[in-house]
Amino acid sequence: MTGIALFGAGTIGHVHARNIAAHPGCELKYVVDKDIGRAEALCRAHGGQAAADIETALKDKAVDAVVVASSTSAHYAHLSAVIAAGKPVLCEKPIADDLGDAKRCADAAAAAGLVAATAFNRRYDASYLAVHDRIRAGEIGKVEMIHIISRTQAPTPAPESVRLSGGMLREKGSHHYDLAAWLSGAEPVEIFAAGDCLVDPGFAEYGDLDTAALTLRLDSGALVTFSFSRRTAFGYEEMIEVFGSEGMLEAGRQRRLSVALYKQDSVIEAGLHAGWYERFGPTYRAELDAFLAAAQGRGAAYANLADGLRAQAVAEAAIRSVREKRMVPIERIW
Amino acid sequence: MTGIALFGAGTIGHVHARNIAAHPGCELKYVVDKDIGRAEALCRAHGGQAAADIETALKDKAVDAVVVASSTSAHYAHLSAVIAAGKPVLCEKPIADDLGDAKRCADAAAAAGLVAATAFNRRYDASYLAVHDRIRAGEIGKVEMIHIISRTQAPTPAPESVRLSGGMLREKGSHHYDLAAWLSGAEPVEIFAAGDCLVDPGFAEYGDLDTAALTLRLDSGALVTFSFSRRTAFGYEEMIEVFGSEGMLEAGRQRRLSVALYKQDSVIEAGLHAGWYERFGPTYRAELDAFLAAAQGRGAAYANLADGLRAQAVAEAAIRSVREKRMVPIERIW
Amino acid sequence: MTGIALFGAGTIGHVHARNIAAHPGCELKYVVDKDIGRAEALCRAHGGQAAADIETALKDKAVDAVVVASSTSAHYAHLSAVIAAGKPVLCEKPIADDLGDAKRCADAAAAAGLVAATAFNRRYDASYLAVHDRIRAGEIGKVEMIHIISRTQAPTPAPESVRLSGGMLREKGSHHYDLAAWLSGAEPVEIFAAGDCLVDPGFAEYGDLDTAALTLRLDSGALVTFSFSRRTAFGYEEMIEVFGSEGMLEAGRQRRLSVALYKQDSVIEAGLHAGWYERFGPTYRAELDAFLAAAQGRGAAYANLADGLRAQAVAEAAIRSVREKRMVPIERIW
Amino acid sequence: MTGIALFGAGTIGHVHARNIAAHPGCELKYVVDKDIGRAEALCRAHGGQAAADIETALKDKAVDAVVVASSTSAHYAHLSAVIAAGKPVLCEKPIADDLGDAKRCADAAAAAGLVAATAFNRRYDASYLAVHDRIRAGEIGKVEMIHIISRTQAPTPAPESVRLSGGMLREKGSHHYDLAAWLSGAEPVEIFAAGDCLVDPGFAEYGDLDTAALTLRLDSGALVTFSFSRRTAFGYEEMIEVFGSEGMLEAGRQRRLSVALYKQDSVIEAGLHAGWYERFGPTYRAELDAFLAAAQGRGAAYANLADGLRAQAVAEAAIRSVREKRMVPIERIW
Repeated sequence: MTGIALFGAGTIGHVHARNIAAHPGCELKYVVDKDIGRAEALCRAHGGQAAADIETALKDKAVDAVVVASSTSAHYAHLSAVIAAGKPVLCEKPIADDLGDAKRCADAAAAAGLVAATAFNRRYDASYLAVHDRIRAGEIGKVEMIHIISRTQAPTPAPESVRLSGGMLREKGSHHYDLAAWLSGAEPVEIFAAGDCLVDPGFAEYGDLDTAALTLRLDSGALVTFSFSRRTAFGYEEMIEVFGSEGMLEAGRQRRLSVALYKQDSVIEAGLHAGWYERFGPTYRAELDAFLAAAQGRGAAYANLADGLRAQAVAEAAIRSVREKRMVPIERIW
Repeated sequence: MTGIALFGAGTIGHVHARNIAAHPGCELKYVVDKDIGRAEALCRAHGGQAAADIETALKDKAVDAVVVASSTSAHYAHLSAVIAAGKPVLCEKPIADDLGDAKRCADAAAAAGLVAATAFNRRYDASYLAVHDRIRAGEIGKVEMIHIISRTQAPTPAPESVRLSGGMLREKGSHHYDLAAWLSGAEPVEIFAAGDCLVDPGFAEYGDLDTAALTLRLDSGALVTFSFSRRTAFGYEEMIEVFGSEGMLEAGRQRRLSVALYKQDSVIEAGLHAGWYERFGPTYRAELDAFLAAAQGRGAAYANLADGLRAQAVAEAAIRSVREKRMVPIERIW
Repeated sequence: MTGIALFGAGTIGHVHARNIAAHPGCELKYVVDKDIGRAEALCRAHGGQAAADIETALKDKAVDAVVVASSTSAHYAHLSAVIAAGKPVLCEKPIADDLGDAKRCADAAAAAGLVAATAFNRRYDASYLAVHDRIRAGEIGKVEMIHIISRTQAPTPAPESVRLSGGMLREKGSHHYDLAAWLSGAEPVEIFAAGDCLVDPGFAEYGDLDTAALTLRLDSGALVTFSFSRRTAFGYEEMIEVFGSEGMLEAGRQRRLSVALYKQDSVIEAGLHAGWYERFGPTYRAELDAFLAAAQGRGAAYANLADGLRAQAVAEAAIRSVREKRMVPIERIW
Repeated sequence: MTGIALFGAGTIGHVHARNIAAHPGCELKYVVDKDIGRAEALCRAHGGQAAADIETALKDKAVDAVVVASSTSAHYAHLSAVIAAGKPVLCEKPIADDLGDAKRCADAAAAAGLVAATAFNRRYDASYLAVHDRIRAGEIGKVEMIHIISRTQAPTPAPESVRLSGGMLREKGSHHYDLAAWLSGAEPVEIFAAGDCLVDPGFAEYGDLDTAALTLRLDSGALVTFSFSRRTAFGYEEMIEVFGSEGMLEAGRQRRLSVALYKQDSVIEAGLHAGWYERFGPTYRAELDAFLAAAQGRGAAYANLADGLRAQAVAEAAIRSVREKRMVPIERIW
């Protein structure tokens, strides 16, 4: 039974708390949040002890591992402390606001030989994982092109929240830069990004985009294209196609239901999931499961902090590319 | 260049005339119809000589083969005469109104060693043919169940025309009884049929049905179910599933276009073909092609008159089953 | 918090125990099984008190409701006792081995005004439920034909277990007779069934079938066809199509994953769920949820004992039809 | 009956000759080719008079319209002569090797008020046309992103033929730049292109690519991405998705057949068309039909020479972008 401290009692903290409480192999020991009321509310629902600071939890021998889901601005302090305490950690992305801080964390965890995971939950989606494993098994030969679509159902977060989230090319993008590298087994080399505010000009006021198309070149020569939007009129849309020399693997858009209506000149099928959580909820459980296995030395694969650092480096180059309208090299800092 | 005489200038006669005229390997020599005006109109569009009776055409040495597409009541006389004249013949189904007459034709053609084909055009559909060939290749092991749906888009023919067509279990059914036997390579043994007039009570006045469900047992033990209707609210619907001990092959409903609209909570795809001809038009060309190849001794597979006779025998048993509400044995007359 | 006693600690008992333990609105108070070791094992995993007989549980005021998942031969005694005790009950089907006993239970529950549910879990499948609701909303007009396929992935239960299960037309069939009546809102009138042992002749020794095709007529005039098999070479297969005067609704075969491989001349998609539980696991949670809501007077829809009785009456007529090779009227005892 | 002269008896000339001969509204009067033997062979099969030069045909009053399908290097001379002769013309793309020559042709045709069409056959694909019309009808609101995939089944043309074809970004690309502008109703503004020779390094020797990803910005603000490859392991692949503010329209990959095999853990469906002609053959007939209608003053929509010029301008900018690794503005010369 792995004792877990959860840092952060916000939206994503709720998801982790629920999954930790329901998992047969671990126990929620602490929920830490500056807003102690939020921490207490989570503990009432899922157990554990509420705290306003991380020290008690880090000192408690019953805490075997930590999940960092605090606000991004707190990540560096929290993550550094957990690594210093020598406890396995699962950290929401980005690792840190600043690329140098993120690298310091990744290096420290690597030096310590710690299980330090970045929460790239999409790697645990059953369909994405199958695509990954089948690429490795050689079913499509050499990967030549990847196309990833990710479009959020509603214009959230609102423009005002952009300052905190870091913007679409960081927040949404980093998941997908990671998928591209993980699926292909190749490293990012250079990136081009173009974008606009077609959904809501409000995003421009915060220096952000709501619509973007990106082209990433990997060191294998493969080209990866990304289509991002902050709004669809038809639910949460995500899809991956990996084109190889001997075939193509596709993890297609998923439907809410298996229902079709044949009527007049159409066949009307059930549409996509309403939102992000309906589509990817199960991946958080699988992610926790893989993290626990790794923390317990049972050798599960997971995204480490260097993977998180890599995705951040791609994001920064992409943002620069939008401004400079050219292909931007990605420095290999991970 | 095979010279062809076409008997019958009605709806299906038009289809044949157009295909004969466009085929590079044959030439339309005669169109015969009691209504000489109809024959002349077809000849104006597609060539050939119009005639009100079949004698001239049958005596003409330039006529190498005959397509019988006259009204069912004339089939027996026309088909007998063509067989007596020793010319290869492609005959629309049913072979004859009367089962005894149909058998006489089948026997005569067999005795003469003539290429005498029943116009089961669906056997030439590219998808149905692929299913047939893959069953023969052993891809699904032993056939255990077949399900065939055939539903016409509009309540045609109108109740008034039923007298001529022989009713749904004969007219529509015979195509599909043939498909079941052809796909499975097994012979019909007994049949159960239930039906009703749910679309239009007018069909009942003519002793016909517009909705029916049938269960046919083949001599291999396989069970075949048929779902028929004279009307859909969504175009022409046809579909075949063949379930075997080692897999299932499906020739699915075909769509008009490859277009989908993602909107709100639905994905709205293009629906089925508007009608029978939009779905099966190409099969008439392929059927003619196979008939010409066979007539020219190039050995193509085709449905012969015995196959047509078999389908008629199944139809008669099905009609009796509706009345008697029991499984009816099918006498092996073919 | 509804206190629940579970009768029966076999396969399906395990499913119920797990769901009861995980549900936030109820608590597992007792697990009763003649084999006290099985009951104790379930209690260790999911809580509650083990017992070898039902009396203690029925007398305990903390038991607000009962789930009957014992062996079919014990159903009548268990169900009668729960009804006599006036506790809401969710009973696995069949209600009782004997049709008369089943009717006595249904009548007693109705007379007592008790929430007494038959465990037709498929009614709670999200796709089936959507089809049901959309038929009610008039999207396809008047229901004219229904086609239901249910084929189990592996020849289980083995022939030897048939004696206990009652055979395919009862065990598998009753779920689907219920779906037909529930979806259409119409009552069964007469049925025809044909079947064989094509998978394993061993089933014949126990008087059972492994392959069957059925045609059911409803009092609305609609015709329902069923295709059943005890074995597929491609996972658990289930599908429903409801054809109406104004359209068709389909709850299609569900796939394991959303993955496709384009290679050579094929597109290879992920196949069906491996088995019954992978496909219908979530319906047991939804069923429990609906039962609790009904038991607590929150008015959820559920299948009552009369619905269970109806399905059994259809099954008995179907079995007789196989022997007599004719349409068999279904006596309206529910 | 429109009399037609066909210039060019190569591969695409064959396609046009066959369609002209079969069309009820026109007649093949001349086939012109420097290689008179090729011209004669086409005339033997499809009628018309063979000629080695274009003068006779252009002077003949029986020639009402011209189809230019000669080699690209001859386009400018041929097209200029036809325009000077004042005859409606359908010209294969590119209009001319040189952008200035192409502009001269477009300007001359516009000044003369001639029906002068560029052979963008994909505009006549039934599914693409439906997407176009439904965008115009407002079904998806404002177009924000378009994604177009076009991948040829086999590494043809071989590297050696690149010199003649102009390379992938011109030859394949121009069709799709045109589709993007036509579907969106917006004009190209700037383009980024990245590519490589991942299939065959031989293409690099001729300064060409076999794999490319492009991002085009339209003057509406919409972003269009293109994925091109010269080889797939699974047939001819083409697909369009148009994402708008109120929905998404998709013209999906088309399958050879409607056949699926359910086996083990997969559903194996029929794959894509074997090649370009199997997929787009029917569009050449529809294109001819639209051209004839326009030439006869029946007002059909068609791509004019300015549209062809536009696609060429995009292609040149794309080629420059590959070299310069930056977004390249597209000069508005059309």
